Amino acid sequence: MPKLTKRKSKTPGLPPGTLVHVGERKTHKVKITVIDYDDKKFQQTEMKDVDECSRYKDTATVTWINMDGIHEIDLLKALGESFTIHSLVLEDILNTGQRPKMDDYEDYLFIVMKMFYFDEEKKEIIPEHISLILGHNFVISFQEAQGDVFNPVRERLEKNYGRIRKMGADYLTYALMDAVVDNYFVIMEKQGENIEVLEEIYDDPHVNAISEIHRLRRELIYLRKSIWPLREVINIMQRQEHPLIKKGTRVFLRDLYDHLIQVVETIETYREMATSLLDLYLSSISNRMNEVMKVLTIIATIFIPLSFIAGVYGMNFRYMPELEWRYGYLYALALMLAVALVLLGYFKRKEWF
Amino acid sequence: MPKLTKRKSKTPGLPPGTLVHVGERKTHKVKITVIDYDDKKFQQTEMKDVDECSRYKDTATVTWINMDGIHEIDLLKALGESFTIHSLVLEDILNTGQRPKMDDYEDYLFIVMKMFYFDEEKKEIIPEHISLILGHNFVISFQEAQGDVFNPVRERLEKNYGRIRKMGADYLTYALMDAVVDNYFVIMEKQGENIEVLEEIYDDPHVNAISEIHRLRRELIYLRKSIWPLREVINIMQRQEHPLIKKGTRVFLRDLYDHLIQVVETIETYREMATSLLDLYLSSISNRMNEVMKVLTIIATIFIPLSFIAGVYGMNFRYMPELEWRYGYLYALALMLAVALVLLGYFKRKEWF
Amino acid sequence: MPKLTKRKSKTPGLPPGTLVHVGERKTHKVKITVIDYDDKKFQQTEMKDVDECSRYKDTATVTWINMDGIHEIDLLKALGESFTIHSLVLEDILNTGQRPKMDDYEDYLFIVMKMFYFDEEKKEIIPEHISLILGHNFVISFQEAQGDVFNPVRERLEKNYGRIRKMGADYLTYALMDAVVDNYFVIMEKQGENIEVLEEIYDDPHVNAISEIHRLRRELIYLRKSIWPLREVINIMQRQEHPLIKKGTRVFLRDLYDHLIQVVETIETYREMATSLLDLYLSSISNRMNEVMKVLTIIATIFIPLSFIAGVYGMNFRYMPELEWRYGYLYALALMLAVALVLLGYFKRKEWF
Amino acid sequence: MPKLTKRKSKTPGLPPGTLVHVGERKTHKVKITVIDYDDKKFQQTEMKDVDECSRYKDTATVTWINMDGIHEIDLLKALGESFTIHSLVLEDILNTGQRPKMDDYEDYLFIVMKMFYFDEEKKEIIPEHISLILGHNFVISFQEAQGDVFNPVRERLEKNYGRIRKMGADYLTYALMDAVVDNYFVIMEKQGENIEVLEEIYDDPHVNAISEIHRLRRELIYLRKSIWPLREVINIMQRQEHPLIKKGTRVFLRDLYDHLIQVVETIETYREMATSLLDLYLSSISNRMNEVMKVLTIIATIFIPLSFIAGVYGMNFRYMPELEWRYGYLYALALMLAVALVLLGYFKRKEWF
Amino acid sequence: MPKLTKRKSKTPGLPPGTLVHVGERKTHKVKITVIDYDDKKFQQTEMKDVDECSRYKDTATVTWINMDGIHEIDLLKALGESFTIHSLVLEDILNTGQRPKMDDYEDYLFIVMKMFYFDEEKKEIIPEHISLILGHNFVISFQEAQGDVFNPVRERLEKNYGRIRKMGADYLTYALMDAVVDNYFVIMEKQGENIEVLEEIYDDPHVNAISEIHRLRRELIYLRKSIWPLREVINIMQRQEHPLIKKGTRVFLRDLYDHLIQVVETIETYREMATSLLDLYLSSISNRMNEVMKVLTIIATIFIPLSFIAGVYGMNFRYMPELEWRYGYLYALALMLAVALVLLGYFKRKEWF
Repeated sequence: MPKLTKRKSKTPGLPPGTLVHVGERKTHKVKITVIDYDDKKFQQTEMKDVDECSRYKDTATVTWINMDGIHEIDLLKALGESFTIHSLVLEDILNTGQRPKMDDYEDYLFIVMKMFYFDEEKKEIIPEHISLILGHNFVISFQEAQGDVFNPVRERLEKNYGRIRKMGADYLTYALMDAVVDNYFVIMEKQGENIEVLEEIYDDPHVNAISEIHRLRRELIYLRKSIWPLREVINIMQRQEHPLIKKGTRVFLRDLYDHLIQVVETIETYREMATSLLDLYLSSISNRMNEVMKVLTIIATIFIPLSFIAGVYGMNFRYMPELEWRYGYLYALALMLAVALVLLGYFKRKEWF
Repeated sequence: MPKLTKRKSKTPGLPPGTLVHVGERKTHKVKITVIDYDDKKFQQTEMKDVDECSRYKDTATVTWINMDGIHEIDLLKALGESFTIHSLVLEDILNTGQRPKMDDYEDYLFIVMKMFYFDEEKKEIIPEHISLILGHNFVISFQEAQGDVFNPVRERLEKNYGRIRKMGADYLTYALMDAVVDNYFVIMEKQGENIEVLEEIYDDPHVNAISEIHRLRRELIYLRKSIWPLREVINIMQRQEHPLIKKGTRVFLRDLYDHLIQVVETIETYREMATSLLDLYLSSISNRMNEVMKVLTIIATIFIPLSFIAGVYGMNFRYMPELEWRYGYLYALALMLAVALVLLGYFKRKEWF
Repeated sequence: MPKLTKRKSKTPGLPPGTLVHVGERKTHKVKITVIDYDDKKFQQTEMKDVDECSRYKDTATVTWINMDGIHEIDLLKALGESFTIHSLVLEDILNTGQRPKMDDYEDYLFIVMKMFYFDEEKKEIIPEHISLILGHNFVISFQEAQGDVFNPVRERLEKNYGRIRKMGADYLTYALMDAVVDNYFVIMEKQGENIEVLEEIYDDPHVNAISEIHRLRRELIYLRKSIWPLREVINIMQRQEHPLIKKGTRVFLRDLYDHLIQVVETIETYREMATSLLDLYLSSISNRMNEVMKVLTIIATIFIPLSFIAGVYGMNFRYMPELEWRYGYLYALALMLAVALVLLGYFKRKEWF
Repeated sequence: MPKLTKRKSKTPGLPPGTLVHVGERKTHKVKITVIDYDDKKFQQTEMKDVDECSRYKDTATVTWINMDGIHEIDLLKALGESFTIHSLVLEDILNTGQRPKMDDYEDYLFIVMKMFYFDEEKKEIIPEHISLILGHNFVISFQEAQGDVFNPVRERLEKNYGRIRKMGADYLTYALMDAVVDNYFVIMEKQGENIEVLEEIYDDPHVNAISEIHRLRRELIYLRKSIWPLREVINIMQRQEHPLIKKGTRVFLRDLYDHLIQVVETIETYREMATSLLDLYLSSISNRMNEVMKVLTIIATIFIPLSFIAGVYGMNFRYMPELEWRYGYLYALALMLAVALVLLGYFKRKEWF
Repeated sequence: MPKLTKRKSKTPGLPPGTLVHVGERKTHKVKITVIDYDDKKFQQTEMKDVDECSRYKDTATVTWINMDGIHEIDLLKALGESFTIHSLVLEDILNTGQRPKMDDYEDYLFIVMKMFYFDEEKKEIIPEHISLILGHNFVISFQEAQGDVFNPVRERLEKNYGRIRKMGADYLTYALMDAVVDNYFVIMEKQGENIEVLEEIYDDPHVNAISEIHRLRRELIYLRKSIWPLREVINIMQRQEHPLIKKGTRVFLRDLYDHLIQVVETIETYREMATSLLDLYLSSISNRMNEVMKVLTIIATIFIPLSFIAGVYGMNFRYMPELEWRYGYLYALALMLAVALVLLGYFKRKEWF
């Protein structure tokens, strides 16, 4: 499970805009891929040098620069300089604790999102910090690790499938965001399966269930915290008439907004379910306890009086007439049986079994 | 019970507007019915071919095209093309996980709603995804299965009952939405009956009650999630001065809004009742436990001292004066009785029975 | 207790505006009373015929038509026609499940409210559906049964007490609404008394308390649902500059709004009290259980070791030296006493009693 | 503790503006004090007659009329007439159940507040209903009883301390409200002390704690209800540009608003603390129960098997070889010891003690 | 832990603007440091006299006056006079109970914030009251004690690191606020560690856990109360076009706002976690109890019937045939074994162990 908070990117007191990487230190080499395209042309290159990127800056074609890995600060600084990105933006690209947001720097929009992978082995949600910069004719995207979430977009660009090559950088940004939101549905489905398993809880309230419910709630708190602010981001992109976002793209953003709302509502629904599951679990525990107590009570309350009778006739008084009776023993056993039956009848009437 | 979430209509990464049907795969043949009417005329035809529909597009009469079944994608695509429907709309018609909403495409309004049937056998709520397109002089409606919810509207059209034939396509849309909302009341009544049954819980806290409360809460969460957004849809239709909705229809939409609020409030009320029921159940369990404990305690605390006395006089010491007494046995029995009476008095004072 | 939901007034599928009475079918004859007054004149007549009413429509005097009983649909229809009331309004007058609201039909305002009587015998709240139509110079009021809530207003009119005869139809509407809201205070007081009785719960947690708390919560949910929307109604009447409501009346509506807020706040307060009462009850139950357990534990833990000692000396081994001792019996009793005292000391230190 | 609701001031059905006193009937004589001042002059008189007051109405000096006691209706009526106060205002001055509010009657502002005294003997909060009327050059204040909350203001006026004599009637109103809000802090401190005492609950969960928590919650509900609406009152006075409130006074009202927010936040904080205290208490009860159960279980489970062994060798079978053994008794005792040790070891491993 | 409320700064009834220090009385000498700088110049002086400060008031350079300690009222008064600060501002500087806020006095902005230190020894959060005055060319900051939170800013000024010397007094204010907010992250991390420790609770539900959860909730309530209002302060500073805040600084304030939101969300997340932890703890207690009960029940229900059998054959009846049997003893032991096995089988089937 991801930590619930992450320290802000800087040692307290550093001047704002100081670049410090706070995510887990990755070791792989940062990979920069540039895709340059328009309706007719498609060219994909892997860059060694940031300076090469900058020549795509003012072309008429749409350029998508993707950076896999954000742990090489010098590379980022160079990129920031050649595209005149504000230092606060660079700081936020590195700050993996940053919540989703959109900042409007007039020349470009800066968007922060969260991605999630499900680690099947550890049964854990792995978060990833994703940043997008939408400029006039270019999009720069930053991922923490080499991921495959943007691959479908890359393929659609390469194969010229759908309208993507005909539209501008704003549509590309939409497509990337859409790919991320699509992925949320996969994560939500996993959570839904978890809940369905936990619903069996009542019939089998195993001891770990409560830990699992706690874990589920924790994950849902984390997911909500990471996804909820994106709502506002997309809503503003869709409504505000920003020169960087064309009207034709807005209808797609409205659709994206719709999908995100669906995710957010699902999280809320799951949170309510988790509460209901907890009640289910607790009352199941109560019921078990009740059942245990009943068995104890029935056995104890039946045999305690019987043992008392046996005890009485085990006393060593010299003069105990019953002891001398011919059928004294039978009488004692009969008495015991009678008491037992009366008590059983009482419990029956109380509907204890 | 319907699943709490449904995967969005597409495999993550497909371009937006790709048509994939995600509902349960239905096998029946999709049926297209066209009703064309004005104040004087009424004509109902079953269509084989989508192309036939398009000739109704520009007539002065109102045309209602109803499609029972949304699993034949090619049919839908053809319809979309002949009425120039946006591909995102077609995607949402197929996406049965789509929440209620209204999208304004200027030439037409696209409305998504949820319907519910109550399956009496499985005691389950069966959801249905319903979409409406309101154009200048036509309404297209999409249902998942052949249903009877729109039948009363069809009848009123045929028999020219009330004002429906005198009004336009906007009133027809209202009438269809009203039929759906009317149906919500039936579902709510079912839930109300459930709650009234569960209120007997206190007197008979059977073990399944908690599962039933959980089920109730789950259904109410689901219903709220499916109905709540419709509020906003109808509110906008009623307030916004859209050219497709005439002023005369707006007073009816206000009435519809009113009814929907009534449904939504009932759901909220039921949710609060469910919480109260849970408290009722839990404290009923507690009370039962308490009662069991009291019986155990009374029996045990009375007989334990008595058995002790019996035990003492069962000891085998050579010199135990009481054992030799003439009325030792009677004395022992009297002692036991006295102890029992004192303890009973104590419990009486404590109001334990 | 009233039902939590009522089916909407029509069989699903009937055209809007169809008049169906859904309240409990009343058998008494519907009574129409007309009061016609101005500063100088006061005339009260009982009407047989709706047509008679209509001649008051355009007089300069203020006319108040009161209908006791809404179960004679034809009468209502006739009235609706002669005062040109929209069919949706007539539908809502009949629909006793309708929540409070105000609809502005330009020529007249339509107001729906809820009244409550407290049935002392069944200890139940009896709701009543009340509708008001405020026209230019007339007010029409509809009650489900012959009630006395409007009597004080009638008296003030008759005796020309206060300013009521000097003001117009809007002030009369205010006076009628004020009479209803005044009545809410009576109901709230009843609930307050209930809560005060339930606060004794801690000292005497009888088994029914939880049912009574549940009932209280249910009633408060119902009252809130029925009263809350009226807030908005009065607020709009007071703020919106509607030609039918004169400025001089608005200060009284502000006062009425104030009183309603007081009622609404009281309901909220009571709801919080009910939650607190539940906690009080549950922890009282817990405490009782605790006390029972302690008694059991003290008795059992003291006597179990003593019985064990008695058991040991009740064994039949041939060679048990203690049995032969001269003061063996005394020694055994002393041992038992010592054990008992040690245990009692332990419990004392634990502050168990 | 004050009652949670008070009946509105009138018998249901009385015309609005009817003066009925609803507070506890006080017997002391109503005292009217008039302070007339400007920068140079200060004159304090006790009035016998309301008519005397009215001659201060149009002077250039600021006049503060304070009425201690509101139970003499005729006096109030006379005052109302000579200052042309609306009858609804007089009704609200008498209605001690009225929530805080401000009504703007153009010529004057009418403000209602709540004061609280802490009755050290009964450990109760005593509420007081305070009304202020701010006119052009005068302030009229109404208290239920002779109180000392306004004394500091009186002193500052008399001694010409601070800026109070240089400012107008609006500043005097502010000063009076400030005196009331200052007093809220005293009450909040009392509540804070209560909570700190209750926090000891975990170590000593005495039976009354839950009643005290309930009482605390009830008081906080009451305080919130009585203080919260004042927020809006002061906010409006500070923001709205009313001719009766000069700009120079507004900065003080902003400060007052600030202080009130502090009080309101403290109430909210205390409410959350009360919830947390309840959880603390309940789990403390649970823990105690657990501990009791453990002692019972340890004692019982150790001695029950031992007693069984003793019971076996207490049987009277003719042929029981162990009974004849030379060291049979020792063997039995050793067996018992062994069983006891095994069980103790088991509990030790379970960390039961 | 800091107290939840602090009395407002004045004895109830003192005129507003009266200066009374309410924090803990500090004994150290108040230290006034003045830093005067522009792009080229940097000068730091320690002041003895407030009058010296005032000559920096109208210079073109930016002046930062920092006062460590607010307990010398005369010093504060003198400062207030020489910079013409409103007396309400001075009152709020002294009032350590004041919540965060910004007041706009046109010539200057007055900002109140809270700082927190974590006292490692007492494991307590120590709050500090910080006030800032932003004037045309100067910033005055007030701290309760000599702290090191502003040191990094001082260093950046001295070493001319980053842009700080190139920007004006508004940027300095931002830098100081940023230093405080940065520090919040440190505190939040401490809380996060606490929560992670408490999550071990389920496996080891030690008795203190609940007190620790209570303490955690209390601290979170306190932190939220102290930090939440700052949100609004920074938001207004960032949006409102105030002449004292230049446009270039606003982008940094937006960044600061972002960080604060992150802190606030973390607090909310932690609060939800604390609730979940409580549930975890309570159900862990329940489970333990359940386990204890099971052991008791198993031991007791097995041995009680066995002891009864032993008791029966310990009776002293003259005629008890079994006692005379050759293998009576073996028969009795076999009977006991059989009963024990049956009961064990029953518990096994019930899955009690």
